Amino acid sequence: MHVDVTFTAQEIEAATVAGRNVVVIDALRATSTIITALVNGCQEIIPVREPAEAMKYRDEKGYLLGGERGGLKIPGFDLGNSPLEYTRNVVEGKKVVLCTTNGTLALANSAAARKLIIGAFLNAGAVAQFLAGQGGDVLLACAGTGGKFTLEDFLAAGVILHKLSKIRSNISMGDRAIAAEAVYLQHQDNVEEALYRGHHARDLADLGFSQDVEYCACVDKFELVPVCREMRVVLPYKR
Amino acid sequence: MHVDVTFTAQEIEAATVAGRNVVVIDALRATSTIITALVNGCQEIIPVREPAEAMKYRDEKGYLLGGERGGLKIPGFDLGNSPLEYTRNVVEGKKVVLCTTNGTLALANSAAARKLIIGAFLNAGAVAQFLAGQGGDVLLACAGTGGKFTLEDFLAAGVILHKLSKIRSNISMGDRAIAAEAVYLQHQDNVEEALYRGHHARDLADLGFSQDVEYCACVDKFELVPVCREMRVVLPYKR
Repeated sequence: MHVDVTFTAQEIEAATVAGRNVVVIDALRATSTIITALVNGCQEIIPVREPAEAMKYRDEKGYLLGGERGGLKIPGFDLGNSPLEYTRNVVEGKKVVLCTTNGTLALANSAAARKLIIGAFLNAGAVAQFLAGQGGDVLLACAGTGGKFTLEDFLAAGVILHKLSKIRSNISMGDRAIAAEAVYLQHQDNVEEALYRGHHARDLADLGFSQDVEYCACVDKFELVPVCREMRVVLPYKR
Repeated sequence: MHVDVTFTAQEIEAATVAGRNVVVIDALRATSTIITALVNGCQEIIPVREPAEAMKYRDEKGYLLGGERGGLKIPGFDLGNSPLEYTRNVVEGKKVVLCTTNGTLALANSAAARKLIIGAFLNAGAVAQFLAGQGGDVLLACAGTGGKFTLEDFLAAGVILHKLSKIRSNISMGDRAIAAEAVYLQHQDNVEEALYRGHHARDLADLGFSQDVEYCACVDKFELVPVCREMRVVLPYKR
Protein backbone atom coordinates (compact mmCIF):
# COMPACT_ATOMS: atom_id res chain seq x y z
CA MET A 1 0.00 0.00 0.00
CA HIS A 2 1.54 3.27 -1.14
CA VAL A 3 0.31 6.46 0.52
CA ASP A 4 0.92 10.04 -0.53
CA VAL A 5 -0.46 13.51 0.02
CA THR A 6 -1.36 16.47 -2.18
CA PHE A 7 -1.07 20.00 -0.86
CA THR A 8 -3.96 21.69 -2.67
CA ALA A 9 -7.22 20.96 -4.50
CA GLN A 10 -5.78 22.54 -7.62
CA GLU A 11 -2.98 20.00 -8.01
CA ILE A 12 -5.21 16.91 -7.85
CA GLU A 13 -5.18 15.31 -11.29
CA ALA A 14 -7.35 12.53 -12.69
CA ALA A 15 -4.26 10.46 -13.50
CA THR A 16 -3.05 10.74 -9.89
CA VAL A 17 -6.31 9.66 -8.28
CA ALA A 18 -7.34 6.97 -10.76
CA GLY A 19 -7.56 3.60 -9.02
CA ARG A 20 -6.63 4.97 -5.60
CA ASN A 21 -8.70 5.50 -2.50
CA VAL A 22 -8.80 9.26 -1.99
CA VAL A 23 -9.50 11.16 1.22
CA VAL A 24 -10.49 14.79 0.76
CA ILE A 25 -9.49 16.93 3.75
CA ASP A 26 -10.66 20.50 4.35
CA ALA A 27 -10.45 20.45 8.11
CA LEU A 28 -11.30 24.14 8.68
CA ARG A 29 -14.13 23.75 8.06
CA ALA A 30 -15.90 22.06 5.14
CA THR A 31 -15.11 18.40 5.78
CA SER A 32 -15.62 18.83 9.55
CA THR A 33 -19.02 20.35 8.78
CA ILE A 34 -19.96 17.52 6.40
CA ILE A 35 -19.07 14.90 9.00
CA THR A 36 -21.02 16.72 11.72
CA ALA A 37 -24.11 17.16 9.58
CA LEU A 38 -24.18 13.46 8.67
CA VAL A 39 -23.62 12.44 12.30
CA ASN A 40 -26.66 14.52 13.17
CA GLY A 41 -28.93 12.76 10.72
CA CYS A 42 -28.55 14.81 7.55
CA GLN A 43 -29.49 12.52 4.62
CA GLU A 44 -27.04 13.78 2.03
CA ILE A 45 -24.80 16.72 1.23
CA ILE A 46 -24.17 18.10 -2.20
CA PRO A 47 -21.04 20.22 -2.42
CA VAL A 48 -21.15 23.04 -4.97
CA ARG A 49 -18.81 25.89 -5.77
CA GLU A 50 -21.15 28.78 -6.61
CA PRO A 51 -24.02 30.25 -4.57
CA ALA A 52 -26.20 30.48 -7.69
CA GLU A 53 -25.88 26.71 -8.18
CA ALA A 54 -26.84 26.15 -4.55
CA MET A 55 -29.92 28.36 -4.89
CA LYS A 56 -31.29 26.10 -7.64
CA TYR A 57 -31.31 23.13 -5.27
CA ARG A 58 -33.40 25.05 -2.73
CA ASP A 59 -35.81 26.44 -5.27
CA GLU A 60 -36.33 23.15 -7.11
CA LYS A 61 -35.80 20.49 -4.45
CA GLY A 62 -36.13 22.08 -1.02
CA TYR A 63 -32.54 21.57 0.14
CA LEU A 64 -31.11 23.53 3.05
CA LEU A 65 -28.36 25.86 1.89
CA GLY A 66 -25.08 26.10 3.75
CA GLY A 67 -21.84 27.79 2.90
CA GLU A 68 -19.45 30.65 3.32
CA ARG A 69 -17.61 33.37 1.52
CA GLY A 70 -14.60 34.74 3.38
CA GLY A 71 -15.63 32.69 6.42
CA LEU A 72 -19.08 34.28 6.72
CA LYS A 73 -22.55 32.92 5.86
CA ILE A 74 -23.61 33.66 2.30
CA PRO A 75 -26.52 36.17 2.24
CA GLY A 76 -29.83 34.37 1.82
CA PHE A 77 -28.43 30.99 2.92
CA ASP A 78 -29.86 28.98 5.82
CA LEU A 79 -26.52 28.11 7.38
CA GLY A 80 -22.87 29.18 7.30
CA ASN A 81 -19.91 26.81 7.28
CA SER A 82 -19.66 26.37 11.05
CA PRO A 83 -20.06 22.70 12.03
CA LEU A 84 -21.68 23.86 15.28
CA GLU A 85 -24.69 25.15 13.31
CA TYR A 86 -25.41 21.69 11.88
CA THR A 87 -27.23 20.36 14.95
CA ARG A 88 -29.69 17.47 14.95
CA ASN A 89 -32.59 19.92 15.34
CA VAL A 90 -31.55 21.68 12.17
CA VAL A 91 -30.40 18.94 9.80
CA GLU A 92 -32.04 15.62 10.81
CA GLY A 93 -33.80 14.11 7.82
CA LYS A 94 -32.80 17.05 5.63
CA LYS A 95 -30.66 17.32 2.51
CA VAL A 96 -28.04 20.06 2.42
CA VAL A 97 -26.23 21.86 -0.37
CA LEU A 98 -22.87 23.09 0.90
CA CYS A 99 -21.22 25.91 -1.00
CA THR A 100 -17.49 25.61 -0.41
CA THR A 101 -14.77 26.52 -2.87
CA ASN A 102 -11.74 24.43 -1.97
CA GLY A 103 -13.50 21.31 -0.70
CA THR A 104 -15.81 21.15 -3.73
CA LEU A 105 -12.90 21.54 -6.13
CA ALA A 106 -10.97 18.79 -4.33
CA LEU A 107 -13.97 16.43 -4.58
CA ALA A 108 -14.61 17.28 -8.23
CA ASN A 109 -10.95 16.75 -9.14
CA SER A 110 -10.99 13.39 -7.35
CA ALA A 111 -13.97 11.98 -9.22
CA ALA A 112 -11.85 9.23 -10.82
CA ALA A 113 -10.94 7.76 -7.42
CA ARG A 114 -11.63 4.13 -6.55
CA LYS A 115 -13.34 5.26 -3.35
CA LEU A 116 -13.69 8.91 -2.44
CA ILE A 117 -14.15 9.67 1.23
CA ILE A 118 -14.30 12.63 3.58
CA GLY A 119 -11.69 13.10 6.28
CA ALA A 120 -10.86 15.48 9.13
CA PHE A 121 -9.47 15.32 12.65
CA LEU A 122 -12.98 14.41 13.82
CA ASN A 123 -12.93 11.01 12.08
CA ALA A 124 -9.20 10.38 11.56
CA GLY A 125 -9.12 6.94 13.19
CA ALA A 126 -12.22 5.73 11.36
CA VAL A 127 -10.75 6.89 8.04
CA ALA A 128 -7.52 5.01 8.81
CA GLN A 129 -9.52 1.86 9.62
CA PHE A 130 -11.51 2.22 6.42
CA LEU A 131 -8.36 2.64 4.29
CA ALA A 132 -6.65 -0.31 5.97
CA GLY A 133 -9.65 -2.47 5.18
CA GLN A 134 -9.86 -1.43 1.55
CA GLY A 135 -6.34 -2.20 0.45
CA GLY A 136 -5.16 -0.31 -2.62
CA ASP A 137 -3.04 2.83 -2.79
CA VAL A 138 -4.11 5.97 -0.98
CA LEU A 139 -4.03 9.67 -1.70
CA LEU A 140 -4.74 12.11 1.10
CA ALA A 141 -5.98 15.15 -0.80
CA CYS A 142 -5.55 18.29 1.27
CA ALA A 143 -7.86 20.96 -0.12
CA GLY A 144 -5.70 23.93 0.91
CA THR A 145 -7.04 27.45 0.41
CA GLY A 146 -7.11 29.12 -2.97
CA GLY A 147 -4.29 26.97 -4.29
CA LYS A 148 -2.12 27.52 -1.21
CA PHE A 149 -0.89 24.99 1.32
CA THR A 150 -2.63 25.16 4.70
CA LEU A 151 -1.16 23.76 7.88
CA GLU A 152 -4.42 22.30 9.22
CA ASP A 153 -5.12 20.03 6.26
CA PHE A 154 -1.54 18.75 6.23
CA LEU A 155 -1.73 18.09 9.96
CA ALA A 156 -5.02 16.20 9.53
CA ALA A 157 -3.44 14.13 6.75
CA GLY A 158 -0.60 13.41 9.18
CA VAL A 159 -2.85 12.05 11.91
CA ILE A 160 -4.70 9.80 9.44
CA LEU A 161 -1.36 8.55 8.08
CA HIS A 162 0.02 7.89 11.52
CA LYS A 163 -3.05 5.93 12.55
CA LEU A 164 -2.97 3.98 9.28
CA SER A 165 0.71 3.12 9.83
CA LYS A 166 -0.20 1.71 13.27
CA ILE A 167 -2.80 -0.60 11.71
CA ARG A 168 -0.80 -1.65 8.64
CA SER A 169 2.94 -1.95 9.03
CA ASN A 170 3.66 -2.51 5.35
CA ILE A 171 2.72 0.87 3.92
CA SER A 172 5.20 2.89 1.87
CA MET A 173 4.97 6.66 2.13
CA GLY A 174 5.81 9.31 -0.43
CA ASP A 175 7.97 12.24 0.66
CA ARG A 176 4.97 14.45 1.39
CA ALA A 177 3.33 11.74 3.47
CA ILE A 178 6.49 11.38 5.56
CA ALA A 179 6.53 15.12 6.15
CA ALA A 180 2.82 15.19 7.08
CA GLU A 181 3.23 12.42 9.64
CA ALA A 182 6.24 14.21 11.15
CA VAL A 183 4.28 17.45 11.49
CA TYR A 184 1.51 15.60 13.29
CA LEU A 185 3.88 13.71 15.60
CA GLN A 186 5.57 16.96 16.53
CA HIS A 187 2.22 18.49 17.51
CA GLN A 188 0.21 15.47 18.64
CA ASP A 189 -0.01 16.60 22.25
CA ASN A 190 -1.92 19.72 21.33
CA VAL A 191 -3.57 19.79 17.94
CA GLU A 192 -5.64 22.88 18.68
CA GLU A 193 -2.54 24.86 19.63
CA ALA A 194 -0.86 23.63 16.44
CA LEU A 195 -3.82 24.80 14.36
CA TYR A 196 -3.46 28.29 15.80
CA ARG A 197 0.09 28.47 14.49
CA GLY A 198 -1.46 28.44 10.99
CA HIS A 199 -3.01 31.50 9.36
CA HIS A 200 -6.46 30.00 8.74
CA ALA A 201 -7.31 29.22 12.38
CA ARG A 202 -6.21 32.71 13.40
CA ASP A 203 -8.38 34.23 10.66
CA LEU A 204 -11.37 32.20 11.89
CA ALA A 205 -10.78 33.28 15.48
CA ASP A 206 -10.66 36.90 14.32
CA LEU A 207 -14.10 36.36 12.74
CA GLY A 208 -15.43 34.97 16.05
CA PHE A 209 -15.15 31.26 15.21
CA SER A 210 -12.66 30.12 17.85
CA GLN A 211 -15.22 27.54 19.09
CA ASP A 212 -15.14 26.03 15.59
CA VAL A 213 -11.37 25.68 15.73
CA GLU A 214 -11.58 24.00 19.14
CA TYR A 215 -14.26 21.62 17.82
CA CYS A 216 -12.54 20.81 14.51
CA ALA A 217 -9.30 20.00 16.39
CA CYS A 218 -10.95 17.07 18.23
CA VAL A 219 -9.30 13.86 17.03
CA ASP A 220 -11.54 10.79 16.75
CA LYS A 221 -14.72 12.43 18.04
CA PHE A 222 -16.74 10.35 15.56
CA GLU A 223 -16.34 6.87 14.10
CA LEU A 224 -17.76 7.33 10.65
CA VAL A 225 -16.58 7.79 7.11
CA PRO A 226 -18.70 9.76 4.66
CA VAL A 227 -18.41 8.63 1.07
CA CYS A 228 -18.80 10.83 -2.02
CA ARG A 229 -20.33 9.37 -5.19
CA GLU A 230 -21.14 11.52 -8.18
CA MET A 231 -20.82 14.63 -6.03
CA ARG A 232 -23.22 13.45 -3.34
CA VAL A 233 -21.86 12.79 0.12
CA VAL A 234 -23.63 10.17 2.21
CA LEU A 235 -22.94 7.97 5.20
CA PRO A 236 -22.79 4.30 4.26
CA TYR A 237 -20.27 3.28 6.83
CA LYS A 238 -20.44 3.11 10.61
CA ARG A 239 -18.05 1.12 12.73
CA MET B 1 10.66 39.33 9.78
CA HIS B 2 8.29 37.04 7.88
CA VAL B 3 9.66 33.69 6.75
CA ASP B 4 8.13 31.22 4.33
CA VAL B 5 9.10 28.26 2.19
CA THR B 6 8.45 27.15 -1.38
CA PHE B 7 8.27 23.47 -2.26
CA THR B 8 9.75 23.49 -5.77
CA ALA B 9 11.89 25.56 -8.13
CA GLN B 10 8.96 25.75 -10.53
CA GLU B 11 6.70 27.64 -8.16
CA ILE B 12 9.17 30.44 -7.37
CA GLU B 13 7.82 33.66 -8.89
CA ALA B 14 9.50 37.01 -9.32
CA ALA B 15 6.71 38.72 -7.37
CA THR B 16 7.26 36.35 -4.45
CA VAL B 17 11.01 36.82 -4.20
CA ALA B 18 11.17 40.56 -4.92
CA GLY B 19 12.63 42.41 -1.95
CA ARG B 20 13.18 39.28 0.11
CA ASN B 21 16.33 37.45 1.06
CA VAL B 22 16.11 34.10 -0.69
CA VAL B 23 17.92 30.87 0.21
CA VAL B 24 18.04 28.26 -2.55
CA ILE B 25 18.21 24.73 -1.16
CA ASP B 26 18.99 21.62 -3.23
CA ALA B 27 20.53 19.58 -0.45
CA LEU B 28 20.99 16.34 -2.43
CA ARG B 29 23.24 17.42 -3.93
CA ALA B 30 23.72 20.66 -5.88
CA THR B 31 23.85 23.21 -3.07
CA SER B 32 25.95 20.88 -0.90
CA THR B 33 28.36 20.54 -3.81
CA ILE B 34 28.51 24.30 -4.37
CA ILE B 35 29.29 24.92 -0.69
CA THR B 36 31.97 22.23 -0.66
CA ALA B 37 33.67 23.47 -3.82
CA LEU B 38 33.84 27.03 -2.47
CA VAL B 39 35.15 25.82 0.90
CA ASN B 40 37.90 24.07 -0.99
CA GLY B 41 39.07 27.19 -2.79
CA CYS B 42 37.00 27.20 -5.96
CA GLN B 43 36.82 30.81 -7.18
CA GLU B 44 33.32 30.83 -8.58
CA ILE B 45 30.55 28.50 -9.75
CA ILE B 46 28.23 29.16 -12.63
CA PRO B 47 25.06 27.08 -12.52
CA VAL B 48 23.59 26.17 -15.91
CA ARG B 49 20.76 23.91 -16.98
CA GLU B 50 22.00 22.33 -20.19
CA PRO B 51 25.25 20.42 -20.87
CA ALA B 52 25.70 22.26 -24.19
CA GLU B 53 25.73 25.57 -22.32
CA ALA B 54 28.33 24.21 -19.91
CA MET B 55 30.56 23.02 -22.76
CA LYS B 56 30.83 26.59 -24.06
CA TYR B 57 32.37 27.74 -20.78
CA ARG B 58 35.06 25.10 -21.00
CA ASP B 59 35.80 25.69 -24.63
CA GLU B 60 35.89 29.49 -24.36
CA LYS B 61 37.04 30.14 -20.81
CA GLY B 62 38.68 27.02 -19.43
CA TYR B 63 36.14 26.25 -16.70
CA LEU B 64 35.93 22.83 -15.08
CA LEU B 65 32.65 21.13 -15.93
CA GLY B 66 30.57 19.45 -13.25
CA GLY B 67 27.10 18.01 -13.29
CA GLU B 68 24.76 15.09 -13.48
CA ARG B 69 21.92 13.58 -15.38
CA GLY B 70 19.92 11.00 -13.46
CA GLY B 71 22.52 11.14 -10.67
CA LEU B 72 25.45 10.20 -12.91
CA LYS B 73 28.30 12.29 -14.32
CA ILE B 74 27.50 13.79 -17.71
CA PRO B 75 29.66 12.19 -20.45
CA GLY B 76 32.65 14.38 -21.28
CA PHE B 77 32.42 16.36 -18.02
CA ASP B 78 35.30 16.64 -15.53
CA LEU B 79 33.19 16.00 -12.45
CA GLY B 80 29.80 14.64 -11.43
CA ASN B 81 27.53 16.17 -8.79
CA SER B 82 29.08 14.43 -5.79
CA PRO B 83 30.41 16.97 -3.27
CA LEU B 84 33.15 14.49 -2.36
CA GLU B 85 34.71 14.94 -5.80
CA TYR B 86 35.19 18.67 -5.26
CA THR B 87 38.38 18.39 -3.19
CA ARG B 88 40.95 21.13 -2.73
CA ASN B 89 43.32 19.32 -5.11
CA VAL B 90 40.71 19.43 -7.83
CA VAL B 91 39.02 22.83 -7.49
CA GLU B 92 41.40 25.25 -5.70
CA GLY B 93 41.83 28.38 -7.77
CA LYS B 94 39.53 27.03 -10.45
CA LYS B 95 36.20 28.17 -11.82
CA VAL B 96 33.46 25.59 -12.22
CA VAL B 97 30.34 25.36 -14.34
CA LEU B 98 27.77 23.16 -12.60
CA CYS B 99 25.05 21.63 -14.73
CA THR B 100 22.09 21.01 -12.46
CA THR B 101 18.44 21.19 -13.44
CA ASN B 102 16.50 21.99 -10.29
CA GLY B 103 19.09 24.12 -8.51
CA THR B 104 19.75 26.23 -11.58
CA LEU B 105 16.04 26.81 -12.17
CA ALA B 106 15.57 27.81 -8.53
CA LEU B 107 18.43 30.33 -8.77
CA ALA B 108 17.21 31.71 -12.10
CA ASN B 109 13.66 32.13 -10.79
CA SER B 110 15.00 33.91 -7.69
CA ALA B 111 16.98 36.54 -9.60
CA ALA B 112 14.78 39.37 -8.24
CA ALA B 113 15.74 38.60 -4.64
CA ARG B 114 17.25 41.22 -2.36
CA LYS B 115 20.06 38.79 -1.51
CA LEU B 116 20.24 35.33 -3.03
CA ILE B 117 22.22 32.77 -1.07
CA ILE B 118 23.00 29.06 -1.09
CA GLY B 119 21.85 26.81 1.73
CA ALA B 120 22.07 23.17 2.80
CA PHE B 121 22.45 21.19 5.99
CA LEU B 122 26.20 21.80 5.73
CA ASN B 123 25.88 25.55 6.38
CA ALA B 124 22.45 25.81 8.06
CA GLY B 125 23.62 27.73 11.11
CA ALA B 126 25.69 30.18 9.08
CA VAL B 127 22.72 30.84 6.78
CA ALA B 128 20.51 31.49 9.81
CA GLN B 129 23.09 33.94 11.20
CA PHE B 130 23.33 35.67 7.84
CA LEU B 131 19.54 36.03 7.54
CA ALA B 132 19.23 37.31 11.10
CA GLY B 133 21.84 39.96 10.38
CA GLN B 134 20.22 41.12 7.15
CA GLY B 135 16.73 41.86 8.41
CA GLY B 136 14.02 41.80 5.74
CA ASP B 137 11.62 38.99 4.89
CA VAL B 138 12.94 35.57 3.96
CA LEU B 139 11.99 32.89 1.47
CA LEU B 140 13.55 29.45 1.77
CA ALA B 141 13.32 28.17 -1.78
CA CYS B 142 13.42 24.38 -1.87
CA ALA B 143 14.44 23.27 -5.36
CA GLY B 144 12.58 19.95 -5.25
CA THR B 145 13.01 17.51 -8.14
CA GLY B 146 11.29 17.99 -11.49
CA GLY B 147 8.51 20.07 -9.93
CA LYS B 148 7.95 17.62 -7.08
CA PHE B 149 8.37 18.13 -3.36
CA THR B 150 11.41 16.41 -1.87
CA LEU B 151 11.77 15.62 1.82
CA GLU B 152 15.45 16.55 2.07
CA ASP B 153 15.05 20.15 0.91
CA PHE B 154 12.08 20.70 3.21
CA LEU B 155 14.04 19.22 6.10
CA ALA B 156 17.01 21.49 5.34
CA ALA B 157 14.65 24.49 5.24
CA GLY B 158 13.38 23.35 8.62
CA VAL B 159 16.79 23.32 10.26
CA ILE B 160 17.63 26.78 8.92
CA LEU B 161 14.26 28.07 10.16
CA HIS B 162 14.70 26.54 13.57
CA LYS B 163 18.15 28.04 13.97
CA LEU B 164 16.86 31.41 12.78
CA SER B 165 14.02 31.27 15.31
CA LYS B 166 16.58 30.70 18.07
CA ILE B 167 18.49 33.84 17.06
CA ARG B 168 15.49 36.10 16.37
CA SER B 169 12.44 35.59 18.53
CA ASN B 170 10.21 37.95 16.56
CA ILE B 171 9.91 36.09 13.28
CA SER B 172 6.50 35.18 11.87
CA MET B 173 6.28 31.97 9.89
CA GLY B 174 3.98 31.04 7.03
CA ASP B 175 2.16 27.71 7.19
CA ARG B 176 4.79 25.92 5.11
CA ALA B 177 7.57 27.27 7.31
CA ILE B 178 5.80 25.98 10.43
CA ALA B 179 5.50 22.55 8.81
CA ALA B 180 9.16 22.53 7.74
CA GLU B 181 10.36 23.36 11.24
CA ALA B 182 8.15 20.61 12.70
CA VAL B 183 9.55 18.03 10.27
CA TYR B 184 13.08 18.98 11.28
CA LEU B 185 12.32 18.94 15.02
CA GLN B 186 10.77 15.50 14.67
CA HIS B 187 13.94 14.20 12.99
CA GLN B 188 16.67 16.37 14.55
CA ASP B 189 18.35 13.50 16.36
CA ASN B 190 19.16 11.69 13.14
CA VAL B 191 19.06 13.74 9.96
CA GLU B 192 20.76 11.07 7.86
CA GLU B 193 18.17 8.48 8.85
CA ALA B 194 15.43 10.97 8.05
CA LEU B 195 16.91 11.58 4.60
CA TYR B 196 16.74 7.88 3.88
CA ARG B 197 13.00 7.93 4.46
CA GLY B 198 12.76 10.08 1.30
CA HIS B 199 12.95 8.69 -2.21
CA HIS B 200 15.89 10.76 -3.41
CA ALA B 201 18.42 9.54 -0.80
CA ARG B 202 17.42 5.95 -1.49
CA ASP B 203 17.85 6.51 -5.23
CA LEU B 204 21.32 7.95 -4.62
CA ALA B 205 22.29 5.01 -2.41
CA ASP B 206 21.13 2.64 -5.15
CA LEU B 207 23.50 4.45 -7.52
CA GLY B 208 26.39 3.98 -5.06
CA PHE B 209 26.31 7.45 -3.48
CA SER B 210 25.49 6.60 0.13
CA GLN B 211 28.66 8.44 1.24
CA ASP B 212 27.23 11.56 -0.36
CA VAL B 213 24.03 11.23 1.65
CA GLU B 214 26.02 10.79 4.86
CA TYR B 215 28.11 13.86 4.02
CA CYS B 216 25.20 16.06 2.91
CA ALA B 217 23.33 15.25 6.15
CA CYS B 218 26.04 16.91 8.30
CA VAL B 219 24.52 19.96 9.95
CA ASP B 220 26.81 22.99 10.41
CA LYS B 221 29.94 21.40 8.98
CA PHE B 222 30.89 24.75 7.47
CA GLU B 223 30.37 28.35 8.52
CA LEU B 224 30.02 30.08 5.22
CA VAL B 225 27.30 31.43 3.00
CA PRO B 226 27.76 31.47 -0.77
CA VAL B 227 26.03 34.33 -2.55
CA CYS B 228 24.66 34.28 -6.09
CA ARG B 229 24.78 37.41 -8.20
CA GLU B 230 23.81 37.40 -11.86
CA MET B 231 24.04 33.61 -11.89
CA ARG B 232 27.56 33.48 -10.45
CA VAL B 233 28.04 31.92 -7.05
CA VAL B 234 30.91 33.20 -4.93
CA LEU B 235 31.97 33.27 -1.32
CA PRO B 236 31.93 36.78 0.10
CA TYR B 237 31.06 35.87 3.64
CA LYS B 238 32.94 33.98 6.29
CA ARG B 239 32.06 34.11 9.93
